[in-house]
Amino acid sequence: MSNVYAVILAGGSGQRFWPLSRELNPKQLLSMFGTESLIAQAVHRILPFAEGGSSIAIATNERLFDELRNHLTAQPDPALHAVRYIQEPLPKNTAPAIALAAATFAAQDPDAIMVVLPSDHLLEDGEVWADCIGAATSAAEDGYLVTIGISPTRPETGYGYIMAGAALPQFTQGTATPHVAARFVEKPELEIAEKYVASGDYFWNAGIFVMKASRVLEELDAAGGAEANIADVCRWIAAQPAENRNGAEARARFGEIVSISIDKAVMERSDRVAVIPAPLKWSDVGSLLALEDVAPADEHGVVRSGRGIDIDSKNSIVYSTDRLVATLGVEDMIVVDTTDATLVLPKSRAQDVRMIVDALKEQGAPEVTQPKVSLRPWGNWMSLLQSSSYQIKLIDVKPGARLSLQKHHHRSEHWIVVSGTALVTIDGVDTEVHQNEGIFLPVGSVHRLANCGKVPVQFIEVQVGEYLGEDDIVRFEDDYARDDK
Amino acid sequence: MSNVYAVILAGGSGQRFWPLSRELNPKQLLSMFGTESLIAQAVHRILPFAEGGSSIAIATNERLFDELRNHLTAQPDPALHAVRYIQEPLPKNTAPAIALAAATFAAQDPDAIMVVLPSDHLLEDGEVWADCIGAATSAAEDGYLVTIGISPTRPETGYGYIMAGAALPQFTQGTATPHVAARFVEKPELEIAEKYVASGDYFWNAGIFVMKASRVLEELDAAGGAEANIADVCRWIAAQPAENRNGAEARARFGEIVSISIDKAVMERSDRVAVIPAPLKWSDVGSLLALEDVAPADEHGVVRSGRGIDIDSKNSIVYSTDRLVATLGVEDMIVVDTTDATLVLPKSRAQDVRMIVDALKEQGAPEVTQPKVSLRPWGNWMSLLQSSSYQIKLIDVKPGARLSLQKHHHRSEHWIVVSGTALVTIDGVDTEVHQNEGIFLPVGSVHRLANCGKVPVQFIEVQVGEYLGEDDIVRFEDDYARDDK
Repeated sequence: MSNVYAVILAGGSGQRFWPLSRELNPKQLLSMFGTESLIAQAVHRILPFAEGGSSIAIATNERLFDELRNHLTAQPDPALHAVRYIQEPLPKNTAPAIALAAATFAAQDPDAIMVVLPSDHLLEDGEVWADCIGAATSAAEDGYLVTIGISPTRPETGYGYIMAGAALPQFTQGTATPHVAARFVEKPELEIAEKYVASGDYFWNAGIFVMKASRVLEELDAAGGAEANIADVCRWIAAQPAENRNGAEARARFGEIVSISIDKAVMERSDRVAVIPAPLKWSDVGSLLALEDVAPADEHGVVRSGRGIDIDSKNSIVYSTDRLVATLGVEDMIVVDTTDATLVLPKSRAQDVRMIVDALKEQGAPEVTQPKVSLRPWGNWMSLLQSSSYQIKLIDVKPGARLSLQKHHHRSEHWIVVSGTALVTIDGVDTEVHQNEGIFLPVGSVHRLANCGKVPVQFIEVQVGEYLGEDDIVRFEDDYARDDK
Repeated sequence: MSNVYAVILAGGSGQRFWPLSRELNPKQLLSMFGTESLIAQAVHRILPFAEGGSSIAIATNERLFDELRNHLTAQPDPALHAVRYIQEPLPKNTAPAIALAAATFAAQDPDAIMVVLPSDHLLEDGEVWADCIGAATSAAEDGYLVTIGISPTRPETGYGYIMAGAALPQFTQGTATPHVAARFVEKPELEIAEKYVASGDYFWNAGIFVMKASRVLEELDAAGGAEANIADVCRWIAAQPAENRNGAEARARFGEIVSISIDKAVMERSDRVAVIPAPLKWSDVGSLLALEDVAPADEHGVVRSGRGIDIDSKNSIVYSTDRLVATLGVEDMIVVDTTDATLVLPKSRAQDVRMIVDALKEQGAPEVTQPKVSLRPWGNWMSLLQSSSYQIKLIDVKPGARLSLQKHHHRSEHWIVVSGTALVTIDGVDTEVHQNEGIFLPVGSVHRLANCGKVPVQFIEVQVGEYLGEDDIVRFEDDYARDDK
């Protein structure tokens, strides 16, 4: 049996989930659907079938790489710390992302079986899922490109459908039997979708694929032209030393390849595609309507999460992350309230949230990009108040972690430890700062904070200065190899 | 000519304006309607006709007294600092509040003319208003109880109406002619209200009265029974030394008087009542619908105030005090977003906001009571973050002001000055703390902060301790004679 690897596609920015998602806190990092984030769920979905976290790669872009890594390393399960990252040098569509992962796995293990998973969907775990992966692996060993097709529960016009043809019983495992994939159809008209659902032969394309890594590249080669070039460039990048894989030449080559989906580039073209019909509960968490699942609805169809109260509302979603939200007599509405931004819309407009995000981007609104809490490899920070001459932050540092050795040209900092014990170095002098003690860092001083203890250090930082941008930082040493950005 | 005094009724809690108003920051303190708060507008409305601020009394209750005084003394106009306060020992209706003011003024000046004004309405200033006060004063000199009747602009069923009878041209001043008040009608049916408006003889009762202080008491005396008792008790309280006017006996006596409106107790009963028809623009700011006036509507009838964006909405009000609010395709809705609470409702339910407030009260939600910024005689403070073991506040101290000499049993405090220069006294030792300097106040230390400078002092306070309630304070000296509450 070949080894199973996985690539989790995590380059998406999830604009339709604003204000819960932000460019730097995309949908895959959100945790309201279950006890862990969608991306952690995706890793755990495939982990039992792979040889540990290091067989799993997160495919993402440069912008999200730090955020994803900071998020996953902040989770308790060490398997989530062991995952690998494949950075696409530029954002392309799914075919280049999957080909790059395939080339990376194939270079390491020519027989590698690769599972492709979205990072921001919900999918039912359990025996049926395990059967699907077993049957898919078996068919993939035989050279098939296998998709998992979700049994449709409604004539959804926003999804792609896959038609199942003849069964391939030789690969059956438990409840899961691969079929020849007879047809791929993108977003059909309602009338057609209704026929598909009634027929029982069509299944939702959930973007889950299982195949030999080498086979993806072969299929691209066979397609020739622009598709073959994807395989060539990805093989070239995978063969480079790690430090070059995101360098200037990699970017230049990757920049020239075509932006195309894996469906178009490979699946719809190959004659060795299988689909495994799977009656799994699945959601692409495609809009704020997905919040209907975060809590049980009351008898009037109102789903509430967070502090507050509702009187006389109907069929609405009221989601608050930390503030009090009161609703009175609203119908068919969505209210999403976060620490720094609120969104109100009728449910019927849930697909149009992207319009709001685009408009806010044009205004330069920081709420499009920045989440309230910024994750760092050493912990996280949150801005409590910012004026032109001072800023107040609440900063958490994990046990054993330390910030970079740094200085600022334009600001002094006052640190007051409210929990734990910090070791603070200022211009070479070490001081232990205990709970309820403060220390002053003059402008220009070279300083660092380390948490040498066993519990988190939490401290308040009051910055005072003429310029308070995050980019006023000179890093001299950093445990996390970050540059000065 | 007798001197003109005024009493501004400011005991209301303005529940229908939540979350903009709070029990401790009632509607009369809100400033979105014009450049100053509604109560400051009320004082300025009558100030030109009175002998300075000290002829104007704010009638309120014990709970709101500090808040109102802190608010008015924080305004730039010294006349607002000079106003007097009459504390009702217990909340009763308008008749006892007005009788207490009347007794107070009459004790000081037997011929006092008293203008009664609501503290939380909008009213057009200018020549017509000046004529009204002139004509009203003239009729009041002759013993009339005069009301200002607003020319109705719609058949409003939520207001009281006054029917104007025969003119009293002897009191005419400019455009204002008093008429005999023929009838008082409370909240009529729509059909009747329409007839009133069409007739031209009926005017809105805006709660504005002008009369000799002594006449109010006489009318109560003449009514006998419970009404006469109001006058007796109020005369008794007004005759007490100041320190007794809110004491146990005053409370006991006031507690026994009847709770009744001035309309019922006096106006509807007296045969010497006049009404001055006044074509003044007026609003009782009775619900959140009043927010329609805070900004011009766009071409789709959307009124927006604050940061954010709207796409495709119609006939809605979106009001944000400081956070970003996005609305998409909402119709006939009101969205009010404050630092700590959000309210969403259709316009048609604006009268029912009180239901939300009542429900939140039952939950014990602090957002019903506390405003985000707490005013103090020396400035104000705002809580930025509170946990079980620490709290962060932003504190502003006016030039020349100082906090009480105090200590805490359960918390240490770190103060970091971000603006101005503070003089900090700790256990008898004075230290000047400049911008970008911090100082530590150990638990149990006796301390004080004074702003001896010419610009406001702004500082960050980080409290650390096992108990962080506002009531952990022992005051040794206080410039504002506050007790330990």
